Parts: sequence; C-alpha cells; structure tokens
Amino acid sequence: MLTYAMDAPADIPLYERLYRHIRDDILNGVLRTGERLPSRRALAEHLRLSVITVETAYRQLEAEGYVTISPRRGAFVAETDRPPERVAASHSETSPATPECVTASPSPVWKLDLGDNCPDPSCFPTAALARLTRQALSENPEALFVPTPNQGLPALRQAVADDLREFRGMSVSPEQILIGAGAEYLYLLLAQLLPSALFALEDPGHLKIRQIYKSCGARFVCLPLDAHGLRMDALRRSGATAAHISPAHHYPTGIVTPIGRRHALLRWAEETGGYLIEDDYDSELRFSGRPIPTLQSADRNGRVLYMNTFSQTISPSLRVGYLILPPELLETYREKLGFYACTVPTLEQEVLARFLSSGQYEQRLSRLRKICRARRAAALDAFRTRFAGRVTISEQGAGLHFLLRLDTPLSDDELRRRAESHGVRLRFLSDYAAEPVPAFAHTLVVNYAGLTPEKLSEAVAALSDALTFM
Amino acid sequence: MLTYAMDAPADIPLYERLYRHIRDDILNGVLRTGERLPSRRALAEHLRLSVITVETAYRQLEAEGYVTISPRRGAFVAETDRPPERVAASHSETSPATPECVTASPSPVWKLDLGDNCPDPSCFPTAALARLTRQALSENPEALFVPTPNQGLPALRQAVADDLREFRGMSVSPEQILIGAGAEYLYLLLAQLLPSALFALEDPGHLKIRQIYKSCGARFVCLPLDAHGLRMDALRRSGATAAHISPAHHYPTGIVTPIGRRHALLRWAEETGGYLIEDDYDSELRFSGRPIPTLQSADRNGRVLYMNTFSQTISPSLRVGYLILPPELLETYREKLGFYACTVPTLEQEVLARFLSSGQYEQRLSRLRKICRARRAAALDAFRTRFAGRVTISEQGAGLHFLLRLDTPLSDDELRRRAESHGVRLRFLSDYAAEPVPAFAHTLVVNYAGLTPEKLSEAVAALSDALTFM
Repeated sequence: MLTYAMDAPADIPLYERLYRHIRDDILNGVLRTGERLPSRRALAEHLRLSVITVETAYRQLEAEGYVTISPRRGAFVAETDRPPERVAASHSETSPATPECVTASPSPVWKLDLGDNCPDPSCFPTAALARLTRQALSENPEALFVPTPNQGLPALRQAVADDLREFRGMSVSPEQILIGAGAEYLYLLLAQLLPSALFALEDPGHLKIRQIYKSCGARFVCLPLDAHGLRMDALRRSGATAAHISPAHHYPTGIVTPIGRRHALLRWAEETGGYLIEDDYDSELRFSGRPIPTLQSADRNGRVLYMNTFSQTISPSLRVGYLILPPELLETYREKLGFYACTVPTLEQEVLARFLSSGQYEQRLSRLRKICRARRAAALDAFRTRFAGRVTISEQGAGLHFLLRLDTPLSDDELRRRAESHGVRLRFLSDYAAEPVPAFAHTLVVNYAGLTPEKLSEAVAALSDALTFM
Repeated sequence: MLTYAMDAPADIPLYERLYRHIRDDILNGVLRTGERLPSRRALAEHLRLSVITVETAYRQLEAEGYVTISPRRGAFVAETDRPPERVAASHSETSPATPECVTASPSPVWKLDLGDNCPDPSCFPTAALARLTRQALSENPEALFVPTPNQGLPALRQAVADDLREFRGMSVSPEQILIGAGAEYLYLLLAQLLPSALFALEDPGHLKIRQIYKSCGARFVCLPLDAHGLRMDALRRSGATAAHISPAHHYPTGIVTPIGRRHALLRWAEETGGYLIEDDYDSELRFSGRPIPTLQSADRNGRVLYMNTFSQTISPSLRVGYLILPPELLETYREKLGFYACTVPTLEQEVLARFLSSGQYEQRLSRLRKICRARRAAALDAFRTRFAGRVTISEQGAGLHFLLRLDTPLSDDELRRRAESHGVRLRFLSDYAAEPVPAFAHTLVVNYAGLTPEKLSEAVAALSDALTFM
C-alpha cells in the first residue's frame, strides 16, 4: 500500500499533499503506467484520511491526466511520457540568459533629451479627469464594467463628432468613428483594413509609422517631400494606393501642406481610387489663427481616412485614438474587422466623453496652447540668443518642436557622440529619414514641450556645452 | 479694392470673416493665381478693420496655402488647383451609402443567446474596483497620467508575477511579462513576434484566434483534436513551428489536456525548436480541486509563451491581458517590437495592481467560482431535466460553458433557423470548426455564465419551445 508522510507542510491541504506524493511517484517511475492505485476507501484507512480527501486527490490526478479512473475498476496510472529534461550545457551556450539578465539596459539620465516630446505632468488636466472619473464612478459604476460596442462607446463617438463639427468644421457621423488604444493600434488596423495596399509614407517622417507597417508586413514606400509636403510626382510614380500623411503639421519638418497640394492629393486619390490617411496628430497645437481645415472636410468622394489621438492634447497615458472611415471602408471594416473588441476600457471612454462634451477639452486645449506658445517663444528666444550666427531655426507656428540647423562640418553621428558624452541626447532630422539626404544634415529636432522655464536655461547651457567645438 | 460685408455672423471673429471671404474668392476664381492682394494697411482702412485683423487673416490664408507672402512685395494668390468636384451620379451608383445608412443592422433582442458568455454585471467586482480607483486618484493623481514603460506598469507586472507564483506555482520574473489591451491585441503582437512561424491552431477552437491570424497575414493550419487535445501526429506532420493551444480547458470542447499529452507537446517543442503558446483564458474557473499546473511551469527550456487576461475573471470591459515570454523571445521582442507603447491606460494598470496585490483578486475569484459553480449546477440540472433522454451533456467541471448534444437528424443550419424564428440564438460546436466534422453535428455550446436563477427557467423554456419538433 502507498505510504506517505502526510503531516507537512501544514499550509497545504491534505488532499493536495497526497496528490503531490502520488504525482511525484508517477513522474519518478515509482508508480508505473497501467498500475492500479489502491481503492479510495483502502488508502483512506491506511493513511488515516477521509475518503473524501483521497477522492479529491484522485480527481485532481485524473484532471491533470496522471491517472485514469474507470467507475467500476478503480484508478490506474496513465501513460505520462516524461517531462523533457533541461537541455544540457552544450546546448545552452546558444541559449539566452535567464530572464533577470535581459533587463533592458537602464536608460541614462540625460541632462537634456531633445527626443522627449512629452509635456511635463504638471500640464496634464489631472484634477479635471480625476473629478470626472469620480463622478462617473459614483453615478453609474456598473455601466463602467460592461464592454462597449466594438467601435467604441457611443457617447464618446458622439462627443468626438460634436467636437470635430464645432471646432474643426468636420461633418462626421458617430457611426464612422472607431475608437482604439492609441495611434499605434490604429496603424495595425489600417494595415489589416487595406491588406493589399501599397502605403506611401513621408520621408522624413514619424519613425513608428514605418516600424509598424514593416513589423506587420504591410507593403510601403517612403517618398520624398518638397516644401509643400509629399511630392506629387513621386507619389504618382510610386504606384502607391494609400498615402499616409500629416498635412496639418508634418513631423519633424513642420511643413504645413498648402491648399494647392491638398487639392492635388485629393485629385490623385479620386483619379487612382487611392486613399489618403490623414494623420492629424498635433493639429490642435497651432499658435496663431485657426486650425487648418482638414483634408477630410474637403473630401467629397470618400477617399480620406482621418485619424487623431488624445496623446498630445490630454496625456499619452490615456492611450486613446480614433479613426474616421469613409462609408465604403466602414463597410469593409465591419465585414472584415468588426469582430475586434474595442481596445479601450469603458471607464476611460466614459471619462473622455464627459471631458469633451462638457467643454473642458476645448478649455484644456486653450490652456495647453497658451503654455506651449509661451514655452515655444522662450525656447526660440533662448536658442537664438545663445547660438546667434551659428544656427538657423525653422518653425511654422505650430506643434511641439522646431528645427535647429547647426553651422558645422561635423557629421550627425559625430555630433551625437560628442553631445552624448556631455549628457545631452540629440535628435536629428536625419534620424527620421529612410534615405540619407545631404540637405537634412546637421539639423536638430528640438522637442521643447518639456522645457519648463526652470529647465530651459539648463537645457540651453547643456546644449551649448555639448557643442563648444562649434 | 476688395469689398466685403463684415458685419455677420457675429459669433465668428472678424479676422475669420475676412479670411473666409478671401478664401471663397480664391476658390471661386474671383481672385486669380498670382494676383496681388491689397496691402494690409490699405485693406484695413477700406474695410474699417484694424491692421492686426487683416494681418491675422492674411497669415491664416498663408498658413493654408491660399496666398504667399513675401516680406517686401506683399501677399499674392497662390496656385491652388481646384478642389475635386463631387463625382457625378453615374459614378455614385457603385459608391457607398452615406454614413448614416451603413449603421450596423441593429442586433435582434434574443430571448436566449447561447453565444453570450459574459457573466451579468452584478457579478463584476464593481465596488472594489471603484474604491481602488478613487484611492489611486486621491493618493497620487499625477502619476496616473504619466505613460508606463512599454511592457506595462512595473507594479502590475510584479503583482501578476506574485499572483502566479502563489496561486499557480509559476516562477516568472516581472521582466518577462508584457501587459497589453486584451488577448486580441496580444495575438497581433504574437504574429509580429514570430513573423515566419506556421501557427498550429486547434480545430475546433476560438474563432477569433483564427480570424486575427488570418486578418494580419500570419500563416496557420487548423489541426484536429482527439480526447486529449491537439493530435500529436497531426502536429508533427503539419510542419507547424508554433502551436497555439488552451490545454487547461479547451474552448469549446472543454478538453483538459492530460499530463501525458502535455509532456508530448513540450517534447515536440524541444525537438523541433518550436514554441507552445499556452492560452490559459479561463483556467481560474475550475470548480473542483486545484487549478491544473500550466505548461509554462513544466517548461525547462524556454519553449512556452503563456498568455491570460482578466476578461473572464474581472470584466471584459477592462481590456487587460498579459503575455509571458521565455528569455529568448523576450530579447527578440525588445529588439523588434520594443518600440510599441503599452496599450493599457496607466490608471487601469494601477487599479489592477492594487486589486491583485491586496488579495482582493483571489477573493474575487473564490466568489466568482462560487457563483459560476452554482449557476452551472442549476443549468446542468435544468437542461438535463427538461431534455431528459433527448440530449447528452459533456462537461469537465470547468469553464463557463458545456456541450449539449441533441438527438436529432436535423442539420445545424436547420436547427439554427428554427431556433432563431423562436428568438433563440444557438451556438454550435460546428461553428468553431474550420473543417466540417460529422461528429460535431447537433451539438450546442451552452454559455451559461449569464444565466442567473431568474433567467434560467426562461432560457430552458425558450430553448424547449425552439426545439419542440424534437
């Protein structure tokens, strides 16, 4: 009869101690395939356990496949095969480090990081969002734990449509809006929505767009820009069927695509049956005049997919973006991708809907524009003064960055190396280019949004130190 | 001189009224390409506006590309091309309906929907989550609006690792954990992490896994099951390099893969250099004994990717899941996909971390198991009584569904049609099959989690009505 010490460890239930003993005996070959285990009653008596305890242990062993139980005949050891042994040392030379060792190398703490375009948390509308969250939780908490329709919470889609109508002159039905967990997720959907498309991407342009299309196997070409945005001749020659562009304020050049080029793009889409993906990522942050009207609002024939997020205007921690589909693609989306559940939690969507529909979002934008306008002016002034005669600044009164061209013969790599040895991390226009272009050299992309008044003079001094050779 | 009525509408700023007038004249051809606009001063005097107003209007026109301004010479109408006209009627026959018309057809309200496997909201831990959300908001609200590291909030990854260690016997470093917006998003990452993989999927199996791999262009084969899970002979013959399986409780058959097959799967992965994706979607909902140990915990050589979500155990509205990568793939992930921002809002991650680390999650699981065990027993009893002799029920003491095989010669399509005409939506085992298998016919998948005591007798009566012919 199986005999086991059943007295320890005390924090494990009796049935589990028995289960473990028997399992180990099976795995170690003490109990062989086909061997019959004692009857429940017999083993219970033998080990002074209750029959229920033995029964529970046997059932667990059965559930995991260690034994088979047949109602009349009893419990038998099943064929278990053996667990694979740990692969021997000779193999492990090519095998990876233990998880603890592959910790990402800690990021250095930079005195200045020009790549960081996140406004400091003091700019976030924390109090307002916290208040709306509490409000939503106290009014109808159950509703916040029910999943939303796949395209997103109707109240949020309505609030987005209303905001776009009122402040951007866009006429959009909530039905056309698709809420998703940030721009990156929406890019993944775009690649699936247009699976046979050849995407035309801006070069230079946002790196992540290229990375994501590449990673998910979408076909794309990187096309050059001129002073007005994507070059029409290159677009026509490329055979692209969808142009992914940011006409309101191109990153990182700052180009605002003028109306002539916009019309040419729409005409191209019309004539070729192509699509324009209007990535309007920071169009709210123009510091003079009105926002530029969108391509979407000039589109008469359903050629424009519009997308935007709240990452720049509220906080990147929200991970909420939206895609507006023209009617034809909306049908395709529903047919082919409609099964995807909405990726944004209901609570976030409810809070955001309240933030928009109460008017607090537009108040927030005014405040943010004011902060950014002041930071921008201070940064431009400080950089111009400190580097007078040695740099050329280009900017378009919009967005959270500007370009600073250095008058130096050094290569970007050399500049980067020298700056990093001074604790300054530079971001170059050439970093955003798929193809090297001589005209892009020596041009810094200055993301100024995090440069509070206190940080600014430090930042300028750090950059000045890093570039002393100039 | 340009002459415009500047007095209406009163809610639009003066500069914008002027801007609109000039823009319209440019678009209508009243002002021609190359034409010089009046000087700011002259137009201001003429229209009795301030110079600033005219200046602002001109700048807006310049920003949008309607005019070019040269510092000495003044403002000139730019070449704008014309906006494409709306495509004429002949074209629009093939063009889609207006957005309002493509509203998804409203889902019928079913008397009984056996496809709905969402527990009713009264089961969600609403109060606890609301309390933790308020707590997080009052303690450190700023932190909730700062983005988390790309793999997820460290506190949440630690809490998940701790929970898995304590309750599942899994030894996992927080470094190996990747937080994402639900299982569907994680499938999209898997396809990108193993871009050249041939995935082996279970047939029958979760439809969305197949849909997503298909939609994102991953290569996959659907392989048959036997009573122990994925058939090893089929797996070996298939040439698959990654098997996506749910050994704890297969959906929808309920199969629990026994230890022998588990070892065989691990051995297969060892020998072929393949990977096992262990999709542990409802393993917490076993109603007897302990949870089945995971494949991940038996894996000695880094062949298992483990994934799970909180959709079944907390609420599908959270959209939080996680992926545990073996060391080798963790490196690949960081190198190739590490650029993806975490898709889950910081607030959700913080609340979930608190829910887990305070022990409330495991309390919740106990309560949920109790609710589901009772509902399951009641549902099994009710169905067995009502359909005595006409059905065979298979279930494994786990998960939120069981199978109900009808003794009928009617086809599944015919059964579905008849039931729908009675307001009952059926879900068949054959719905989850890639290849038709005669043995799957006439078998209903009963998702019972939403069947509260009040709803149950209604549901059984509705199904009985729908199947009167039997």
